[in-house]
Amino acid sequence: MVSLSQPAYSRLDVEERRRRLLEMGTELFTRHSYDELSMADIARHAGISKGLMYHYFPSKRDYFVATLQQAATELAAVVEPSGTGTPLEQLTASVDAWLTWIDANAEAYAKLMQSATSVGEVRELIEGIREATAQRILDGLSPDSEPPPAVRSAVKGWLWFMDGVLLDWVAHRDIGRSALRDQLLGTLLGALAAAAGPDAAEISTAG
Amino acid sequence: MVSLSQPAYSRLDVEERRRRLLEMGTELFTRHSYDELSMADIARHAGISKGLMYHYFPSKRDYFVATLQQAATELAAVVEPSGTGTPLEQLTASVDAWLTWIDANAEAYAKLMQSATSVGEVRELIEGIREATAQRILDGLSPDSEPPPAVRSAVKGWLWFMDGVLLDWVAHRDIGRSALRDQLLGTLLGALAAAAGPDAAEISTAG
Repeated sequence: MVSLSQPAYSRLDVEERRRRLLEMGTELFTRHSYDELSMADIARHAGISKGLMYHYFPSKRDYFVATLQQAATELAAVVEPSGTGTPLEQLTASVDAWLTWIDANAEAYAKLMQSATSVGEVRELIEGIREATAQRILDGLSPDSEPPPAVRSAVKGWLWFMDGVLLDWVAHRDIGRSALRDQLLGTLLGALAAAAGPDAAEISTAG
Repeated sequence: MVSLSQPAYSRLDVEERRRRLLEMGTELFTRHSYDELSMADIARHAGISKGLMYHYFPSKRDYFVATLQQAATELAAVVEPSGTGTPLEQLTASVDAWLTWIDANAEAYAKLMQSATSVGEVRELIEGIREATAQRILDGLSPDSEPPPAVRSAVKGWLWFMDGVLLDWVAHRDIGRSALRDQLLGTLLGALAAAAGPDAAEISTAG
């Protein structure tokens, strides 16, 4: 439980206060549904006035979207490629980091994927992450040229595959993390091989 | 344009009238957003009173969900396996039928995937289709036993992959249909091979 009600709270600077409110929100929205919580509830949990809460976030929706954006930013930082090693090594490390993060934030992740139903911005957020990640992988595969349509399609589809597999994993938890990582990477290589067609089996080592 | 305003309309039986209203709805919701249309607009398009419209569908949301359910039922019938040939041959035929349907109903499909944001039931509908399709594929792969977790995960993930790839296809239209079919099937085989791990490369011919 993140406590915001300590006496020192009023001395926190604006950015730090906002950060703590978002951290608290990630926790709150995991335990309660979006509809269940009012801004008054949230302010009470934070130990601040409803007015101050509205000062930081104009609406519950803004607050909710901001908590998810923070989680997404955190995740993006975690999976940022190191820049050293082959593209496949970098991708392996990123997928590893991704799984570690989801392992630790399973409920927040499942919530993120589900909440696309009540908050439209969330779908855009998820699509934005997929788009940026796909671009990064495609840049790794062919840094100097536009990828063929089938390769673009395979990489985009694979990011959907990831979400499907990860939601299944979060629900069942019956696959080990490193086995899952190998499965995810193996599927990307399989998807790229299928995209290259029967004549070009060597794409899995391209880049 | 489906006309419901012909004089004979009042003699249509209830089921047929309902079916035509749904057919009209699929078209209407493709051309206009959900928020743009009121029940009064919809009734006017159908040439019936708003009261009669409400007699068939208690709310705009019910009407919208029913149009999508009808599209989903239609799609499910189209991809129903024939029961003859190997599981892979049956799956190939189903994926072919799926692509043909999406080719002809691209806008309705994109709408279905996007409308999960405004109507929660749509997400459940999509998940229900994925769940049933995954089960059907898993039954084909191992009819008499529970699939290993990694295989279940691969098949579920592949249905997400499908949606990612199909949305990309609908947006770009730069891949031929049979090439796309081969790519989708090749990726499923790649995902199953990755799920079986390095020790079991023969799964792609199992079943």
